[in-house]
Parts: sequence; structure tokens; C-alpha cells
Amino acid sequence: MQVTSGRWKSMTEASAFLKFVDINLRGAGQVMFQNNPLTGLIFLLGIAWGAFASGTVVVAVGAVVGLVVATVAAIAFKVDAVPLRSGLFGYNGILVGAALPTFLQVNATMWCVLIFAAAASVVVMLAIANVVKTWSVSALTAPFVLTTWLFLLASYALAGLPESGLPHPGLPQPMAAGIGLDVDAMIGASLRGISQVFLIGNAVTGCLFILALAVNSAWAAIAALAGSAIAVVVAWATGASPQVIAAGLFGFSPVLTAVAVATVFYSPGPRVVGYAIGGAVFTVFAQAALDVALRPLGIPTLTAPFVLATWVFLLPRRSFAPVPHEVGQGGVLHPK
Amino acid sequence: MQVTSGRWKSMTEASAFLKFVDINLRGAGQVMFQNNPLTGLIFLLGIAWGAFASGTVVVAVGAVVGLVVATVAAIAFKVDAVPLRSGLFGYNGILVGAALPTFLQVNATMWCVLIFAAAASVVVMLAIANVVKTWSVSALTAPFVLTTWLFLLASYALAGLPESGLPHPGLPQPMAAGIGLDVDAMIGASLRGISQVFLIGNAVTGCLFILALAVNSAWAAIAALAGSAIAVVVAWATGASPQVIAAGLFGFSPVLTAVAVATVFYSPGPRVVGYAIGGAVFTVFAQAALDVALRPLGIPTLTAPFVLATWVFLLPRRSFAPVPHEVGQGGVLHPK
Amino acid sequence: MQVTSGRWKSMTEASAFLKFVDINLRGAGQVMFQNNPLTGLIFLLGIAWGAFASGTVVVAVGAVVGLVVATVAAIAFKVDAVPLRSGLFGYNGILVGAALPTFLQVNATMWCVLIFAAAASVVVMLAIANVVKTWSVSALTAPFVLTTWLFLLASYALAGLPESGLPHPGLPQPMAAGIGLDVDAMIGASLRGISQVFLIGNAVTGCLFILALAVNSAWAAIAALAGSAIAVVVAWATGASPQVIAAGLFGFSPVLTAVAVATVFYSPGPRVVGYAIGGAVFTVFAQAALDVALRPLGIPTLTAPFVLATWVFLLPRRSFAPVPHEVGQGGVLHPK
Repeated sequence: MQVTSGRWKSMTEASAFLKFVDINLRGAGQVMFQNNPLTGLIFLLGIAWGAFASGTVVVAVGAVVGLVVATVAAIAFKVDAVPLRSGLFGYNGILVGAALPTFLQVNATMWCVLIFAAAASVVVMLAIANVVKTWSVSALTAPFVLTTWLFLLASYALAGLPESGLPHPGLPQPMAAGIGLDVDAMIGASLRGISQVFLIGNAVTGCLFILALAVNSAWAAIAALAGSAIAVVVAWATGASPQVIAAGLFGFSPVLTAVAVATVFYSPGPRVVGYAIGGAVFTVFAQAALDVALRPLGIPTLTAPFVLATWVFLLPRRSFAPVPHEVGQGGVLHPK
Repeated sequence: MQVTSGRWKSMTEASAFLKFVDINLRGAGQVMFQNNPLTGLIFLLGIAWGAFASGTVVVAVGAVVGLVVATVAAIAFKVDAVPLRSGLFGYNGILVGAALPTFLQVNATMWCVLIFAAAASVVVMLAIANVVKTWSVSALTAPFVLTTWLFLLASYALAGLPESGLPHPGLPQPMAAGIGLDVDAMIGASLRGISQVFLIGNAVTGCLFILALAVNSAWAAIAALAGSAIAVVVAWATGASPQVIAAGLFGFSPVLTAVAVATVFYSPGPRVVGYAIGGAVFTVFAQAALDVALRPLGIPTLTAPFVLATWVFLLPRRSFAPVPHEVGQGGVLHPK
Repeated sequence: MQVTSGRWKSMTEASAFLKFVDINLRGAGQVMFQNNPLTGLIFLLGIAWGAFASGTVVVAVGAVVGLVVATVAAIAFKVDAVPLRSGLFGYNGILVGAALPTFLQVNATMWCVLIFAAAASVVVMLAIANVVKTWSVSALTAPFVLTTWLFLLASYALAGLPESGLPHPGLPQPMAAGIGLDVDAMIGASLRGISQVFLIGNAVTGCLFILALAVNSAWAAIAALAGSAIAVVVAWATGASPQVIAAGLFGFSPVLTAVAVATVFYSPGPRVVGYAIGGAVFTVFAQAALDVALRPLGIPTLTAPFVLATWVFLLPRRSFAPVPHEVGQGGVLHPK
């Protein structure tokens, strides 16, 4: 299904509009490191399905607006053509656009802020990418996380931007033991963990996302599913909240860590598989830790656990003897 | 009014005392990136006026002590002559010296701590400047922010260093809509926003600071005023607290961002003006966000929103095609 | 007492088991920068004594398990031989292993987490060391701090990993003046400050640690004792809690800062002694500040004040004219 070659490619080269569409679809795909417009298209379908099913169509609209605004901003800033063409300036915008209507009330101020924030995510992307390329790692979704945190925190101080669904600020409390999860619940939780990468809690969307990955990379689809399943098992075994597990909220970061470590940045192999499993497990604890650390501030972790864990697991690269040291070509900003 | 050349210059070269005075005045000027002793002198007059008007002369005394101690410490550490001569080791000290008596009770322990903190700000400056020059950006006021935060936080654990005017620690609460601001209040807020760069809430001081900028750079004066006005309008339009806006507390960081992005680091031009406006708007949201994020700790943001926003908006430099890439010569540590 | 040369050295070269023991003992020694197996052995004896005296033998067992797991993990990752041989992949593991049973209830989940965390500390070590070697500084105990914070924070969200002795989350409160300390109490506090480097509050253990340092470096022993005494005096003079001072909880970070700045990274001399004293004083305020900053999260500072202060005081190195610029050979990761 090499949609990126052949007919689509020549169509995008013949039409400025289709080229723009292609860049945006690749931007959607880059949320999970896939430089593939078909992957991005199926991601958008999955987002639409999930948003429609939960009665929050505005989340899907926000995602598309954020994606397009970020891409336009990147073009206006005259960024380098190669990463632009690969969708690397859209993936933070789509996430910003999905997150703000999820956590804020939808009014005119929110839409102005969403547009400004999506454009700002491009600046934040350039800033963070410039810093972290010093160590040959990419910005991951850190620009999305930082930009969104900034506007969600600000909403507490701005009466014109009221929240809607932010966690209530409070001090950490020890967790009481909950009831268990059966196998069915665990499978549902694993699928929702994949869908939560785009802030959607819907098993069908999770299946669509697996399909979207599979059309570009079978390994990526397997890694995503494995990362989500590992998260469910580790969170369950250590006594995390069953409701939170069932909503897929322990899975979305390990999904991304697993895809990043196992398929994009390192060439696959038994040692890399073991290392990626370690990274996914580490991400589960990072998710729990950041959930607690952010509780006094009343903001969600977003994909910060993924960013933290993946940076930690990718930075040692040069120190490992047996792991191949080349950066994969899966769509991350290349070091110079 | 090129006071730095001609007679004053030859006087400072003839007298070690006047040279020391010159370094200190430039240190005051560097708080707003102006390597000009007259600017620094007018800044000090503005601080004195504001401190006297509010009955807190000790803030002005603390500022001068902090400035002199930091300069002496830098000389004792035998730092490089060029940045020393330009006042780059004084501007954090003057801010530390203004901030500690603003937020802590004035006793013998406070003065010992102020002297130690002002000297330590030089070490923190050297440390941060060494780190961030990797990406050709300067330390900005990060050394002031980190040093002051450290001692303000410590005051909660030290009975000998009681606070006086720190915000009360608490959890974030959603903001209720307040009453509006009329145009007169907005003008006053804009002037106080400029004076708050030195922790002074006084419109006359704001006017003096504009004058101080204008003697060195008309562009800097315009950028400062524009930055403060943008902050007032954006904060008002998004429903921030009218009291906080009127006190100038949304303006001081956007003032610095506007001056930094528009006049010091980039050559002026229409695109840079637009980019600087974006940076100032971003800083307003960063101010709101950090106000909320620091609420559980009971410490003020100081100029952290400026530092965060300006680093974010300067780091992408190399990635932009049309913006000139040279670092301005406005008085920041040059990259090697 | 050059135990590392001569007979022990030939024994370790003849036996893979003794070589492994040697690496582990050096790992213990590296907590205070001593690349010496005898130092490490006496550290372990001191830990055992303190843990036994306080009825928490599990802390000593955890320390040994953490040390061995981290060393095994480093070998499995095939890290560079020279830092491995010097114990640089064990010192974070021993601290993680001591900390987790100190703050968490001891059950099967805790042991699984301890083993995973000790192995993960090697990955975190490689990641942080790769980042900070950009500025020719070493990772210090940052990998221990970050890894342990992550799992302690996570414990609040995981019913299977209940805490036991974590500080109760709360908002900062101003400190009330306490009663004084007499000279005897100050001497005890100084010794316990040294023992708290390994999370043990025991004066005898403190004496054993001084002995352990002295067998490798008289200067290190003197610096450790001076750092702890400075901490007690500064904390007492500024009105810190007498109970906290007496427990040695203001001393462990200044001890490490003093050893790091005075004996390992800079060659000794009067200016360096003064600078190291400044660093130790700065660390006391950093300890107070981080105690307050972490209060809402309910986790201890661990050695974060040492890491922060030592990075701040070592990063300016290249900017100082008179201080020798060579990195000492006391056992920290060398810059390339």
C-alpha cells in the first residue's frame, strides 16, 4: 500500500492544493511517527468517529483547525522544506487543537486562543528541536505538551477562558485498593489506550489507529498494541485505579514510547525489543508519577510521560555497544 | 546624547572610582538590555522615586546594595573584562536586591542573605550563560529569577527570614469575571507595567523608565511601551483580574520580551515587528500560566514569563529563512 | 593504604568474582566520589550499622540489592569498560536501593520495583551524563534523584506500592521560631549530616563514613566534615527547624557539595576553599528551598540540593581566570 509513491505523489506535485492536503495528512500521521498521508487520513477518521460517538464533535473540528493553522504558520515562517513536507510542523498543532476544546469551554476566546496556540506550537517546536538536536534526539510531542500546559494553566487566571473538564486541583492522596479488571476490560483498555494518543477514549478508534499504523508499518502497529497492553498489565499489577486504566489513560504514553524506541529510532532486534519493553514499563511509572505531580496544578499530563521516558531511553544511544546507532528515517527531525 | 563617548568616557578611564560607577550604572541599564550609564542612572532615579512614593525606601537601598555587591563579586571572581565592563554581571544583582526587601521582612538576616544572594547571582549568571550559549542565546534574567526563588522559597523554612508580602500558598481556583477597565486605567496600567520591571508599581517611574530607554534607543522605548500596552489589552480581553492588570503585573514580562525580540536580538523590520508582537502576546499567557503554577508554592513569577517566552522566540532563529541571523550588539553575552 | 594497588589489584585481575565485587565496592565509594573499594566497604559497614541500630535492616539489604542490580544492568548494556570499572554505574543504584525501602512499605511489589528502578538508574545515568557532558560536568546523583522521585510520586497512584514514611503533602507554612541547639547537639547533627548521604541518621555511621573517606583522601574527609558543620551553623543561624537540623537533614547535600567543589573538581587552594564554602552555604539555602518546593508533592528532596548547587558552582569553571580548569580525576565521568 505504498500510497505515497505513484499516483498520489504525482497528483500532489501537480496541485498546490493537494500538496497542502498531503502535508497536513502527513502531519496527522507524524503524531505516531508515520510519514504517510493515508495513515494520517485514517487517524482523522478515527478522531471523527470517536468525537462523534462521545458527542464532542468540536474536538475533531479543533484538531483539524489546529493542524491546518500550524501548517500555515510553518509555511509563513519559511521553515526548511524537507521537514515541512514530512508533516513535522503539523503534529503538535493537531494535538493542541484536540486538547484545548477537550479541557476548555468552547467560546470565541477559546477559538482565538486555539489558533494562536497552534501557530505558537510551531515556534515552540523550532525552539525545542534546536535545543535537543544537540544530543541527536527529536522534540517528540514536547511542543504540544508545553504549549497546551501553558494555556490550560492560564485558563485558571482568565475569566474569559473557563475550563471544562480539567482535573480539580488538589494535594496527592494515597490510593485505596480498587476492584480488579477482567480480560475483556483489559482488551478494551488496551484499544482505548491507543485512541487516547489523540485524547479519544473509544475502542473502535483504537482499532482504526492500529489499521492506520499497519498501512505504513506492521512493526509500528504491533509495537503500539504491545505498548498499550504492557501498560494495562503493569498498571493493574501495581494497583492503579481500574477506572483510569479502563479509560485507556495509562496506555497512550507507553504506546508512543514503544513505537518510538522499537521501530523508529532503533533497528528492530531481540535486544531492542527488550529495551523497548523496559521503556514502556518505565513510561507507566512516569505516567503515575506525573499524574501525582500535576495534581496540585489541576492539569493533565498529556504525553509528557512519553516525552520524558523516550528521551531517557534514547539519550544513552551512543553509550551502548551492541545497539545500532543510526537514527531511523521514520520521520523525526534529523540531527545535522 | 552619546554620553558613553566623549567626556564621560575619558573621565572613567582616568579614575578607577568613576570606572566602577560606570560599570554599576551600565549594570542597571542592562536590566532592559541598554549598555548605557545614563540609562542606568535614570533607572535608579525611577526606582528611588517609586520606592519613596510607596514608603519602601529599603527597596531602593536593596537594589543599590545588590548592584554593587554583584559587581564587586564579579571583579573578585576575575570574570572576563568585556562583559564585566558592559554591566552584564550587575543586572541580576540589582533585581535580587530590589526583590528580597519587597518580599521579606527587613532584618539583619535579610541583609546578610541579600549580600550573599547578590554575590551568588554572579555564579548563577556564569553557570546559566555557559549552558545557554550552546544555542547562541543569553541568560536574560534567569539568574535573578532562580536565585530569588531559591531564597524566597527558603524563607518558608527559616524562622530568621520571615516573609512580608509573599503571595499566600494555595491551590488554583477558577477566576470569576471582574469589572472592566476604562482607557485611563489602561494607560496607567501600561506605565506601571514598565515600572514593574524593577518591582515598582508607579506610573511616574514608568515614564522615567521610558525616558531612560529613549536616551539610548528610541526603538527600545517604543517597544517597551507597545509591549506593556499589548499586555494590558490581551489580559483585559481574556478576562484577567482587573486589579492585577491595573497594578502593572501583566506587563513587565511582555515589556522585556518586546524589547528583546524587537530591538536587541533581531534587526527591526515588519516581519520582526509581527514576530515580536506574537512574542509579547505569548508572554501574557505565560504570565497567567506561571502565576497559577506557582500558586501552591507562594512565590511570585518574577520575570520568569519573559525568560521562558524570549528563549522560545529566540531559539528558532537559525531555522527562519528571512530573519537576519546575527546577534545584536545590545549588550548580551556573545556566543563564542 | 593504597589498597587498590598491589595484592588486591592482582586478586581482582585473577578472579571474575572478585573483579565484580571490586566494581560494586567502588560503586559504593563513588557516592562520595571515591574510586576506592575499601572506602566502599566501610560505607557498606556504616550503612549496615545504621540500619541495624534503627531497626531497618531492610534499608541495608535494599542498598546492596540496588548496587548489584545496577552493576549487572550496566554490564548487560555493555557500557564503556573504564567508567564501569570505576563504579560509576553503581552509585545511583545503591542510593535508589536505600531510598525505596526507607519511604515505601516492604512487599513483593516494592522489591520488583526496586530491581526495575535500580536497572533503570543506569539508563537515566547514561542519559543525563550524555546531556551534561556538553558542559564538562558530570551527572552527580541526579539519576538517583530523578529515578527515586519518579517511583515515590508513582506510589501515591498505585495501591500495590503504599508509602511508609513519605512526608505528608501540604502547602508551605511560615516557620515558627524553635528552641536553640547546644554544641553537643551541633556535633551530633554534623555527624548525622554525613551519614544522611546514605539516608542513615546515625552519628557512629557518620564517623565510619569519615574514616572511609580518610583511607582514600584526607582532604575529602575534612571537606565532608566541614560541609556538614557549615550546614548546621547556617541552618541554625537562619532559624531552621532544630529537629530537622539535629537529624542531619540539612547536612547531607552540603557535605557532597563541599567534597565535590573542594577536592574532586578543582585543585585545592585558598580561593577554592572560599569558593567551596560559598557552595556549601548556597546548598543549605537550596535544601531549605527544595524542602518547601516539594511539600505539596509529599516527596523528599533526596540529594537534589547538592546536584543543583554543584552544577551551579561548577558550570562557571571556564569563566574564572585564577581557578585551574582541569577536571580532577576523582572518579567522575570525564568529558571527551
